[in-house]
Amino acid sequence: MNDVRTERRVRGGGGAARRAERTAVSMDTAKFITRNIPNFEILNEEALEIIEWNADTVLEEIGVNFVENPAALQLWREAGADVRGERVHIPRGLARELCKTAPSTFTQHARNPERNVVIGGKGLVLAPVYGPPFVRDNEGGRRYATMEDFRNFVKLGYMSKWLHHSGGTVCEPTDVAVNKRHLDMLLAHMTLSDKPYMGSVTEPVRAEDSVTMSKILFGEDFVDQNTVMTSLININSPLTFDSTMMGALEVYAKHNQAAIISPFIVGGAMAPVTVAGTLTQVLAEVLAGVAYSQLIRKGAPVIFGAFVTSIDMNSGAPTFGTPEAAHITYGAGQLARRMGLPYRSGGAFCGSKLPDAQAAYETANSLNMALLAGVNFMLHACGWLEGGLVSSYEKFVLDADQLGTLHHLAKGVSMDDNGQAMDAIREVGPGGHYLGCQHTQANFKSAFWRTDVLDYKPYETWEEEGARDSATLANQRVKKLLRDFQAPTLDPGIAEALESYVAQRKASEPDAFG
Amino acid sequence: MNDVRTERRVRGGGGAARRAERTAVSMDTAKFITRNIPNFEILNEEALEIIEWNADTVLEEIGVNFVENPAALQLWREAGADVRGERVHIPRGLARELCKTAPSTFTQHARNPERNVVIGGKGLVLAPVYGPPFVRDNEGGRRYATMEDFRNFVKLGYMSKWLHHSGGTVCEPTDVAVNKRHLDMLLAHMTLSDKPYMGSVTEPVRAEDSVTMSKILFGEDFVDQNTVMTSLININSPLTFDSTMMGALEVYAKHNQAAIISPFIVGGAMAPVTVAGTLTQVLAEVLAGVAYSQLIRKGAPVIFGAFVTSIDMNSGAPTFGTPEAAHITYGAGQLARRMGLPYRSGGAFCGSKLPDAQAAYETANSLNMALLAGVNFMLHACGWLEGGLVSSYEKFVLDADQLGTLHHLAKGVSMDDNGQAMDAIREVGPGGHYLGCQHTQANFKSAFWRTDVLDYKPYETWEEEGARDSATLANQRVKKLLRDFQAPTLDPGIAEALESYVAQRKASEPDAFG
Repeated sequence: MNDVRTERRVRGGGGAARRAERTAVSMDTAKFITRNIPNFEILNEEALEIIEWNADTVLEEIGVNFVENPAALQLWREAGADVRGERVHIPRGLARELCKTAPSTFTQHARNPERNVVIGGKGLVLAPVYGPPFVRDNEGGRRYATMEDFRNFVKLGYMSKWLHHSGGTVCEPTDVAVNKRHLDMLLAHMTLSDKPYMGSVTEPVRAEDSVTMSKILFGEDFVDQNTVMTSLININSPLTFDSTMMGALEVYAKHNQAAIISPFIVGGAMAPVTVAGTLTQVLAEVLAGVAYSQLIRKGAPVIFGAFVTSIDMNSGAPTFGTPEAAHITYGAGQLARRMGLPYRSGGAFCGSKLPDAQAAYETANSLNMALLAGVNFMLHACGWLEGGLVSSYEKFVLDADQLGTLHHLAKGVSMDDNGQAMDAIREVGPGGHYLGCQHTQANFKSAFWRTDVLDYKPYETWEEEGARDSATLANQRVKKLLRDFQAPTLDPGIAEALESYVAQRKASEPDAFG
Repeated sequence: MNDVRTERRVRGGGGAARRAERTAVSMDTAKFITRNIPNFEILNEEALEIIEWNADTVLEEIGVNFVENPAALQLWREAGADVRGERVHIPRGLARELCKTAPSTFTQHARNPERNVVIGGKGLVLAPVYGPPFVRDNEGGRRYATMEDFRNFVKLGYMSKWLHHSGGTVCEPTDVAVNKRHLDMLLAHMTLSDKPYMGSVTEPVRAEDSVTMSKILFGEDFVDQNTVMTSLININSPLTFDSTMMGALEVYAKHNQAAIISPFIVGGAMAPVTVAGTLTQVLAEVLAGVAYSQLIRKGAPVIFGAFVTSIDMNSGAPTFGTPEAAHITYGAGQLARRMGLPYRSGGAFCGSKLPDAQAAYETANSLNMALLAGVNFMLHACGWLEGGLVSSYEKFVLDADQLGTLHHLAKGVSMDDNGQAMDAIREVGPGGHYLGCQHTQANFKSAFWRTDVLDYKPYETWEEEGARDSATLANQRVKKLLRDFQAPTLDPGIAEALESYVAQRKASEPDAFG
């Protein structure tokens, strides 16, 4: 099953290659972001040292629970932890020491090698929303997500210029059995997109399926030697590692596939109500989780994750785009860099029920802070609505458009002669106008980021065209993208092998729901 | 006319004082922001030095125009500039040297001393939208602004917790003669609000009226000795200082009243299409303008202004919330700090025609970048719509609510024992829940920023209540605020004197429109 080589070479010649090139042109995906701007560092050295000291105190004194997982407890014992029941007390410094074998950056390969991503360092890789059981669009309103919705979101992700990654559970296809939907989801990512994707984590056996299907797609040797999936392992905060998620982590780490080790924090509920307290717990949890990944396999690629938000103390509802979430995201980025690990956080977060002004304020607050926090992998970068309960079609394309602003922000300021523009200032002079000058003509195509969906028209034109709001414009863009979609070429033998594996696995057990 | 003392003391006792206190409680205005977080510095030392060198080259070699202003040319000649016609060539270093007498911070007094603001340093003072000829609300749509709209926006500003300043031309009252509307506008700020305000700049004589009315409000001695207005002096970019704006500046500087010296830049039109080129021109213009203010009166309070945005190269429309505008805003902040001047930039900028998702993305991008850019005075902090053509009622309250996030962001991270929350982590432990713990109970009221207008309700409740979007919720808040408005108490003698001055000035000349 080494067809990956063929698939990769096919682009060099023949009809498939020409089709692939046409597709590549029309798809026009930006390379992942490389920051040429500094990170925003909210904590000083003293604050960082206090939090690191406190996190080690938490690990040693309070400890973490590895639930229903005797093998994990055994590994921890052998590593030098003090294990009492399911509680693992990790001596000061041990977890950080164990984390040192995790790589500071790694490449996740895509089946189209032009879409490989490097995760870590100054990079920022953007992936779509993950997990919502509902979808919403202007016509259909809010409804349970189906496999058709799932395929639609994979298509939209594939066609989004500023999105580098196809993601994972772009919505939960609730019309497919719980024990089988991961197969259909993987098949969609593998066939409808050529961007990198995530594996299933809901049961260890589904992680195994993800590895097997990836071997069909990339070739067995290739998967043994390279990382082709980055999957999401949530920590059951506070301080608890359940056996399902750890089981999936064990599968991926053993296969050298990447995992995001991610505390899932609603501040005031799963973590203290203060920023420094939350950062302490987040760091303790990540230290324990990443250390455990390295006990499974030294050098397994992992990401320092932090899903953090605050809570509305009146209603208990999680809230998004808040200043406290920004503080935590900035601080966790500093902690991740001090560990030398790639950092996952941020997203197009909002609590709003609609893709309205609230959604956009909250989302823009979150996206901007994530860029400046030094995030390396941003899940939920587009499409997230209603606290993550809903994948929104319209918001997907609106957010995806805003991701372009992050690319341009990250470029920084050019200081070469063209950037300094002294000749232009001389040419135009006091009272003049720059629109026609030579420097403007030479630069205008690349000088400014430009939206693909927002409205810049004169008022009268806008009114004549129906006075459309952003959600309406977005709805029209969704329809156009789905109408224009062309799947990237894939070796028919591989496609057939994937479909056949899915069919066989589905036939092997009865449907289970819930 | 020294009643200001009386007005201030009246709060100590009697019925007026009790009314004032009740009002003060219900109005609950936040103190201006003091940053406890670092600024975001996008340019390194070398880039800053290049831009500063280039700006001096522009001033010396290209020069700036002071149009129809022989007195200004004479002052420049005496200061050592090379004046040819209306073109002023300023020898390298001279402008920066002249700027040194401008204060790095100053206090602008409000008639309610609790609402005085300090402009400069680590502070951030927020003022509402300035200048739109149109207003928009959900019911009435877009229409020319009237004096009634103007009063409504002053009332909304007075009632906005996170707004520190009443602003100036919150909209253009087009139903009042051009030569008289400044009188009604000032009267509205002085009587419907007790926050600091801006003076008129559209003719020097209107600046004189602003000073005279301020003397009625504060007392003549007080105005001679204190700054009670901060007014907006736009530079006619590129590199042109017109006699109207300079005339207003001359009035204010002579009276020791503050002025924002502000290039008005749409990049690619009034400045080069590149960031470094725009920063060079902005710096040259501010150096010349601030230096001129110090030629008028050494020590006159001024602000380094930068109104910057980009342009849609396809249509020529100005665009907002763009990455290029952010680069310029960050860079100009660094240049202002190196001059030791307060910095004005940012705002709730957007190009959208409606208070929809586009408006909010663009606005949030702008607000976040302005906070981190170290802006000290933010005009247009709420209510700006459609590229500044429209003051939006609904967006005013939505933006004003978001200004709360800036206050909380600026607080930074508390690292005291309560912030570290180690006792809470110990109390809750693995698998526990923080909502009920002692630390959460002790902190929940102040821990998180909370919106006054956005929706955090459960989906079902939200749907039952009409599935309202942000604009609808905002519309209801506008109505409630205007219904609840109570003017702050003002000595009846002062109110009468102000009204009488306005009436007398209006009667002294015929109406002029345009």
